[in-house]
Amino acid sequence: MAEQTEIRIDGKTFKVAKREAILEGMPEWKSSELNVVGKRIARTMGPDNVTGRAKYAYDVYLQGMLYAKVLRSPHAHARIKKIDTSKAEALPGVRGVITYQNTKRKWDDERNILNETVKMAGEEVAVVAAESETTAEDARALIEVEYEVLPAVVDPEKAMQPNAPKLQPYGNVFGGKPQVYNRGDVEKGFAEADIIHEQRYTTAYQQHACMELHGCVAQWERGQFTMWDTNQGIHLSKDLLALKLGLPITKVRVINEHTGGGFGSKTGIYPYHLMVAELAKKTGRPVRLFMDRNEEFVVAMNRPYTVQYYKGGVKRDGTLTALYHRVIGQAGPYKENAIWAARASEDTEEVYHCANVRAEKYHVHNNVQAPRPCRAPGGTENMFTLEQLMDELAEKVGMDPVEFRKKNAARYDQVANKPWGSNGYVQCLETGAKEFGWKTPSPGKPDARKKRGIGCSSVFWHGNQSEQSQAVVIVHPDATAELLAGISGIGVGAETILVQIAAEELGLPMESVRITYGDSQGTPYTLNAAYGSRTTALSGPGVRAAAHDARRQLLKLAAARLRAKPEEVEIREGKAFVKADPKRSIPLREATRRIGRELIIGTGKRPPNLDGYEVDAFGAAFAEVEVDTVTGEVKLLRAVSVHDSGRIINPRTAENQVQGGFIWGVGAALFEDRVLDPHRGIHLNTNFNEYRLPTALDVGDEIKAVFVETDEITNSIGAKALGEPPTTGAGAAIANAVYHAIGIRVRNYPITPARVLEALRRKA
Amino acid sequence: MAEQTEIRIDGKTFKVAKREAILEGMPEWKSSELNVVGKRIARTMGPDNVTGRAKYAYDVYLQGMLYAKVLRSPHAHARIKKIDTSKAEALPGVRGVITYQNTKRKWDDERNILNETVKMAGEEVAVVAAESETTAEDARALIEVEYEVLPAVVDPEKAMQPNAPKLQPYGNVFGGKPQVYNRGDVEKGFAEADIIHEQRYTTAYQQHACMELHGCVAQWERGQFTMWDTNQGIHLSKDLLALKLGLPITKVRVINEHTGGGFGSKTGIYPYHLMVAELAKKTGRPVRLFMDRNEEFVVAMNRPYTVQYYKGGVKRDGTLTALYHRVIGQAGPYKENAIWAARASEDTEEVYHCANVRAEKYHVHNNVQAPRPCRAPGGTENMFTLEQLMDELAEKVGMDPVEFRKKNAARYDQVANKPWGSNGYVQCLETGAKEFGWKTPSPGKPDARKKRGIGCSSVFWHGNQSEQSQAVVIVHPDATAELLAGISGIGVGAETILVQIAAEELGLPMESVRITYGDSQGTPYTLNAAYGSRTTALSGPGVRAAAHDARRQLLKLAAARLRAKPEEVEIREGKAFVKADPKRSIPLREATRRIGRELIIGTGKRPPNLDGYEVDAFGAAFAEVEVDTVTGEVKLLRAVSVHDSGRIINPRTAENQVQGGFIWGVGAALFEDRVLDPHRGIHLNTNFNEYRLPTALDVGDEIKAVFVETDEITNSIGAKALGEPPTTGAGAAIANAVYHAIGIRVRNYPITPARVLEALRRKA
Repeated sequence: MAEQTEIRIDGKTFKVAKREAILEGMPEWKSSELNVVGKRIARTMGPDNVTGRAKYAYDVYLQGMLYAKVLRSPHAHARIKKIDTSKAEALPGVRGVITYQNTKRKWDDERNILNETVKMAGEEVAVVAAESETTAEDARALIEVEYEVLPAVVDPEKAMQPNAPKLQPYGNVFGGKPQVYNRGDVEKGFAEADIIHEQRYTTAYQQHACMELHGCVAQWERGQFTMWDTNQGIHLSKDLLALKLGLPITKVRVINEHTGGGFGSKTGIYPYHLMVAELAKKTGRPVRLFMDRNEEFVVAMNRPYTVQYYKGGVKRDGTLTALYHRVIGQAGPYKENAIWAARASEDTEEVYHCANVRAEKYHVHNNVQAPRPCRAPGGTENMFTLEQLMDELAEKVGMDPVEFRKKNAARYDQVANKPWGSNGYVQCLETGAKEFGWKTPSPGKPDARKKRGIGCSSVFWHGNQSEQSQAVVIVHPDATAELLAGISGIGVGAETILVQIAAEELGLPMESVRITYGDSQGTPYTLNAAYGSRTTALSGPGVRAAAHDARRQLLKLAAARLRAKPEEVEIREGKAFVKADPKRSIPLREATRRIGRELIIGTGKRPPNLDGYEVDAFGAAFAEVEVDTVTGEVKLLRAVSVHDSGRIINPRTAENQVQGGFIWGVGAALFEDRVLDPHRGIHLNTNFNEYRLPTALDVGDEIKAVFVETDEITNSIGAKALGEPPTTGAGAAIANAVYHAIGIRVRNYPITPARVLEALRRKA
Repeated sequence: MAEQTEIRIDGKTFKVAKREAILEGMPEWKSSELNVVGKRIARTMGPDNVTGRAKYAYDVYLQGMLYAKVLRSPHAHARIKKIDTSKAEALPGVRGVITYQNTKRKWDDERNILNETVKMAGEEVAVVAAESETTAEDARALIEVEYEVLPAVVDPEKAMQPNAPKLQPYGNVFGGKPQVYNRGDVEKGFAEADIIHEQRYTTAYQQHACMELHGCVAQWERGQFTMWDTNQGIHLSKDLLALKLGLPITKVRVINEHTGGGFGSKTGIYPYHLMVAELAKKTGRPVRLFMDRNEEFVVAMNRPYTVQYYKGGVKRDGTLTALYHRVIGQAGPYKENAIWAARASEDTEEVYHCANVRAEKYHVHNNVQAPRPCRAPGGTENMFTLEQLMDELAEKVGMDPVEFRKKNAARYDQVANKPWGSNGYVQCLETGAKEFGWKTPSPGKPDARKKRGIGCSSVFWHGNQSEQSQAVVIVHPDATAELLAGISGIGVGAETILVQIAAEELGLPMESVRITYGDSQGTPYTLNAAYGSRTTALSGPGVRAAAHDARRQLLKLAAARLRAKPEEVEIREGKAFVKADPKRSIPLREATRRIGRELIIGTGKRPPNLDGYEVDAFGAAFAEVEVDTVTGEVKLLRAVSVHDSGRIINPRTAENQVQGGFIWGVGAALFEDRVLDPHRGIHLNTNFNEYRLPTALDVGDEIKAVFVETDEITNSIGAKALGEPPTTGAGAAIANAVYHAIGIRVRNYPITPARVLEALRRKA
């Protein structure tokens, strides 16, 4: 049992463990004493990424490889009455065709990988493997399918109606009822309010739109299954493959050094991975399956469309008394992933200090592709709407929106009833307002065509789970080191910051440490997969612990050479010296070369988060927009995104993350507008001309990243989440700025010119 | 200091350490209790090797890769007066040409990788890199070179004459004088002898003749150098590259999973590796250089030709009183590798109990490609001749050759004055004689055209050096394990027997353990390179130690589940149980699945050999031949090769090793006959039609492998050398059998039809 202490917040007392418990003998890092951590270091893999040297799964072409193509359902719901693959199989060059009839591999308790009944448009009906891509396409066209079209429902609100086709035994609400969170007494809270405000908002579908399309290349050799795969984590994919293929873990190898974008859509595996495995087994050949851009839009999943109802109660002095929130999200036909449909209430529960909160989540089954976590899932949908509501409430009580947020800012985690390991929330609002040059918004000139407005939003991201992470650090006789890390390089810079952490702990310069990653074989679980903005805070402490184990061995070697005790010796920048007499020093390699071929192998693992605390990342976003009242176009002029993400390991890559994350928010708020066939539930504008992503020209002069560095107490490196928080702040900051520009709210995202013009018409 | 004990041999007392010192807490392996070690298990990589699935360096084709071709000296000794590469460089598709003029990279203290003066035919003069192999060849033909031809000497005995061109400041004998070993007083020994016998023998050049030609593919990326290389050890090659390129170890990566034969010729690196590195750097492109078969014969080095003089003294009762041995070998022009020229005296010093021994080794510089260790280097040349001498001495005193050997067999290591960790020498002679059906040879029918004879030879191989070896064993939650081993798969089955050792120690079935190897990145030094028959005895204990570390952790987990103490628990074949009550058992995975993502990581290293002992492998060879007195052809009818190689980890792969090794000896004894240009020192019969290797049809009905298993005390697995010993016994067993068939000795290897006929003419 770790030693405990008490802290008091808001008159409440919390019992928490002392930090020593997670340091396990390591010293606390003091920012002023760090040599590598905290430095602006360019991403080590950057040059490879931009010159095309980096090898992605998409680049893998194996000898004797077959190409696979998928025949997909054109219907939202249908039973396959008859399927005839004989013509396809007879085509020269075709090596295998699988359908639900010849392939019985289970996907989960609910369905096989190929099924007699398809429940969403785009669902796989058959897969062809052939000697060339074009042969596979030709063969696909030769498959004859007769469908019995079944009743389907696309819109989630319609799916909740009693007459809707029932997709699950319990009905269309996942689990048969909404998931409800209750704190205090929301009715009592509304009774105490001076002002009550109710609103409906919607948030939009968003595509992950990865540069690298979904796909993999797979091969069986001597009963071993190897997959080159584009994913967010080799170990998670490996474990799921082992589980679903019924193989021992060591018989499955997943290789993925670089991923061309994932954003949640490449976490784990899809049924298509098992289809490729089946075809590779059936044909005895390596098989390659990659989607094209159309398929990617149709079936690679997405951020779900949500409908959200809010009711807020507030006293005249701005004190929140009650919050009611109902979220309806589209869950797709299957139970898998259904919980990602209407996740958007966690922020309602946590971001503001409020005694009475009720949140109801309706994950609604429909005949549409299932949702999948998409950069800041839930948080984006929640903050995009909650933070419009807060602006509306602030206006109703006549308060400055920043002041309103500061007044109501949560002081501790009200759901877990625990203090935070660090909390820079209010400081972020204050720092951001200052950086942005915030003043209370006032209406723009009434007669101008182009109107400017400013808006703000809180930023919040639920904490890092306390998961296991492990690493290995090998030190060579010339005092260079190798970090074995079980991660994929998904483009977030993990391969850079983990090397920084290892180098810092080892007392070596950055360039003396190499990282080996991207292969499930020979690496420990440093991270099962990169999602939830977890990489730094989960993997970092694991890497530090492994490096520390190596450091202990280094200190012993160096101490022997310096005729001192290990505890009297320090290592810094490749030099070992006696702390009390730094002139007594040697290059570290003088100590290490004596190891010969017995390399120093350090292993370490992340201890669980410090007991008694919750971990959340905070921030604030500020935006200025210009609205063209004739065309309806909204132009983002500038933004400030402020973050408390704990210690910033690498300010340069952190800024990139903030800018990238914020732009995702800009896309969801202003640009990305999926057109869905209302009957067939299929994405229609499946290209980048019609489904527009923001480009560099669309995001204003500057998205300024500002960090309020706190020292997160719950882990040994002091870091928190960073990748996803910026996305959550962009939407409402922009929506609020649009409102302050034109004086009328657009409550349905994305805020397209059409919706702006429609709102202006309503106002007029 | 390890605890000591005493052993007595031949009235002498030796102080030795107790075995506990090298067991480091591990139990002694008892053969009867082993489940995986000692079992006949097929090589796990065999199917890949024979189906073409295995990937060799030769199979590596990288995107944007250039092809390199080497222009070689036609002269044995010459100065480049002028070299003009302009026409070659102007050829479309040529990307770079290097010569001694634009490339100053050092090879060693004696020379650069490219030099103004070339000292052997085939030495590199220029290297071209071009977009295709044919372009590179065309460009090579366009390089204009003007040579000043310098005096050269090819024959080593001629090189020792005073008028020979002097290749080194100290003359042509390496180091300026022979290397001499002296024990007792050889003159006194001869004085005591009743019979003195003197003879001159020669042994032949032998090509390694690897199936996979020498070569590599190299690439620079962001200052990191990666080489796909055909070699006998990734770590040795990596270390040498780092050293010679002046790079940190972590900036060099050597990849080599499968090697298509090495036999000593692929240990470490050659100058061509650095030429490829230079060209890859110069062109900014990956570069591929592989020799063709002609080049392979000319420059990939070989077993040196030796001239050997012996004088043996023996009493009438067969007791050896004195041995004098002079070896002259060709060293090539450079100091590098010179010591491999005339290594063949170690067996003279050690194999027989003899108080008075003198051996003189003349490593003689000449303008011929340098020697390189070739399967059982030294030992082959030594035993091939020493064991003819022993047969001749036995005949002189009228003793059976087996009895003569048994009588004089060494009882301890007379050079080191130490006992052996195990000694099955005499037992091998006895077992072999029995297996073979040995009886004292008597002359065949005088009038038969085809005459049969039998012969025997002792087998001896100097011990494994006591080197460092390290391994890592990872155990997954489903109780499958991964062995990280820094070895290359050179075809000897190491990847199989190391898995056996790990599985045995972990208490897992063979199929639950996977090995990761063939990449210097991410693996420890399990072996720097596979030479000297060291793999099992060096790497095995390192692997066992790592597995034992993992086992300790497994026992702790299992004990907790079984409510017992770790020392009360046993693990066997994937099951953990209480030793005293085996019904209290669980599948091991029940214990391991609780580790989640914190894998069990075991690390371990080989302790130095047990103090006080020497390690040598023993054996005996028996052969029956049929000589066609008309054609001179010698046909091997059958053979028995008996070995004391300590514990046999895998009898099946061990038999393969014995058969393969013996066939090498057959090649050197009967077939492989290099034709050397006596003036230019260049190999002329550079193809497998004219330079004949024995095929399956040439080696008789059966080469029977027999093992006399001893438990070698100096390491934790009880194993000794095996790969090379069989080669040493084949030559003299055959030569002696030829003698007993035809009644006249052929003392120059290979025993070709021409030499047999010549001997028969002499006899007649």
